[in-house]
Amino acid sequence: MAGEPPSRVGGDASGALVWSVGDVDSPVFARSALKMLQALPLVETGAADAFGVTDAELALACASHSGEAVHVETAASWLERIGCDETCLACGPHPPINEAANRALILAGRSPSRLHNNCSGKHTGFLTVARRLGVDIEGYERPGHPVQRLVLAAMAGMAGIDRAAMHVAVDGCAAPAAAFPLKGLARAMAQIADPSSLAPERAEAARRLDQAVKTNPLMVAGTGRPCTAIIRAADGAASVKTGAEGVFVAVLSELGLGVALKIDDGAGRGAETVIATILAALGVVPAEEPTIAALIDAPVLNTRGKVVGARRPADWVAPAVREAFGATRR
Amino acid sequence: MAGEPPSRVGGDASGALVWSVGDVDSPVFARSALKMLQALPLVETGAADAFGVTDAELALACASHSGEAVHVETAASWLERIGCDETCLACGPHPPINEAANRALILAGRSPSRLHNNCSGKHTGFLTVARRLGVDIEGYERPGHPVQRLVLAAMAGMAGIDRAAMHVAVDGCAAPAAAFPLKGLARAMAQIADPSSLAPERAEAARRLDQAVKTNPLMVAGTGRPCTAIIRAADGAASVKTGAEGVFVAVLSELGLGVALKIDDGAGRGAETVIATILAALGVVPAEEPTIAALIDAPVLNTRGKVVGARRPADWVAPAVREAFGATRR
Repeated sequence: MAGEPPSRVGGDASGALVWSVGDVDSPVFARSALKMLQALPLVETGAADAFGVTDAELALACASHSGEAVHVETAASWLERIGCDETCLACGPHPPINEAANRALILAGRSPSRLHNNCSGKHTGFLTVARRLGVDIEGYERPGHPVQRLVLAAMAGMAGIDRAAMHVAVDGCAAPAAAFPLKGLARAMAQIADPSSLAPERAEAARRLDQAVKTNPLMVAGTGRPCTAIIRAADGAASVKTGAEGVFVAVLSELGLGVALKIDDGAGRGAETVIATILAALGVVPAEEPTIAALIDAPVLNTRGKVVGARRPADWVAPAVREAFGATRR
Repeated sequence: MAGEPPSRVGGDASGALVWSVGDVDSPVFARSALKMLQALPLVETGAADAFGVTDAELALACASHSGEAVHVETAASWLERIGCDETCLACGPHPPINEAANRALILAGRSPSRLHNNCSGKHTGFLTVARRLGVDIEGYERPGHPVQRLVLAAMAGMAGIDRAAMHVAVDGCAAPAAAFPLKGLARAMAQIADPSSLAPERAEAARRLDQAVKTNPLMVAGTGRPCTAIIRAADGAASVKTGAEGVFVAVLSELGLGVALKIDDGAGRGAETVIATILAALGVVPAEEPTIAALIDAPVLNTRGKVVGARRPADWVAPAVREAFGATRR
């Protein structure tokens, strides 16, 4: 868990850590928590402007979406605008995360398509960059393709790490999955929160993606999902993103802070609780807002709907965050 | 992780551990891995005989079933035979674990019922005990009900622990969830594997349940599930059962051994791999049998169906097991 203000990073690419707990030095695959970084080339190459990409579409590029109608339709119309269709996507199909959407698909006698893949927006973003670069879209998901070379370089640059030292594997959606330390991930998020030390094109891209995510919380995840709830509750003060295996990141533009955490057991439950606890402690989200309260002190229900337990942060987390970061938003 | 032969337990209720790794003393909620123990009163009270309970039904009582047609129909006909129906079950509804079964349910325009709950067989077993005792079935799932008093006493007795020291919470299916150390759980499984030191009624119940599970692998879990695959591959040499949060137990009657393990991260993936590795090392399942090989060296696929990683046991596990237990089955 780490937070880092770019104001303390200055020209130093190694970055400064405001606060950390546990191991922030070992490389982790942050998976979908990297999506805002992976979307930077979409804006900074001019691809988004060239193809009239909307803020809702930019948010979808940063999303692990639930495969609801709005997500699928947004991806489909964006693909059409760049002269592509579903078959151009390198991600495979999986059932919509949203249960009602999955049920509707089954009732319609249809199978999940690549558009339902939670990463279809990210992939459409990659294809848009390929179109902008005027390169063959074939193999756009491979590390050696011009699109992914830009994406991996952007990630390494934002995290302040050497691209050559970044371990790259293959993610569930077939795109490259990069591993680097949590402290680099926190630094990258802090650079989005306060992009003043970045090159102008990248700073503008970071601001625009942050704004797009903040103003389209449903596009980033979906109905009932923690990312959507937290972004809504933060009301312009935070972009957040979950990643597989217990990762969560936050971009706090009003505070100029980035947050990155991983819960070692790899389950999302702890990560949801801790990110909500941290943001509430910083005054970024109201702790008493029902969707936030339900993440911080989450009831565990049995199949009869009866509360049989609770999931709560350790007592020390909120005070430690308040003490480490001093001034908070409210 | 622990293994214990009753031959070394003798009259000593504390039991003897053949081999252990990690913490086997802290209490854990073994959840569904307790189902064979929870089913003991069903046989030893004479309830199973009184109501003509078949081996397939006994296996269902020990199951976390997938909600396939065979599971739902078996539970329904058994309930009818004891003068009950679905509304008597205290467990709540949840979608069938089996994807095809869930799809069929949705296409039929139906909602999941309590019969689809993976514990519906266990609950039907509880109701059968209540009928046998001639007590009110109302509240049969509560710790103070005569049925659960028998169940909790059976668990404590088999584990060699004090019932009063056993922490009891509420499980996902509304039945009592008991917590006790892994070494007690291994002892309980060893007592089923070699029931010679148990009272005659309990010994007979243990043998009958073990036999029922071994001969009805599909009933215990379902199509494509690890428990079903392992029991099939063991071909009469093992009963196994998974439990939520990374627990797995095995009853090895030919070796007179019990095995209990919990993977601390709480995910089932590690537990599946380790139980298959242990049983293969002991010669109880053939390591080269495709379903077993796929558990021990499990490919990690992305959404395109491409292998992007693997899940394997640590190198030391199989040799350590072979060394600790000496003689194996083959």
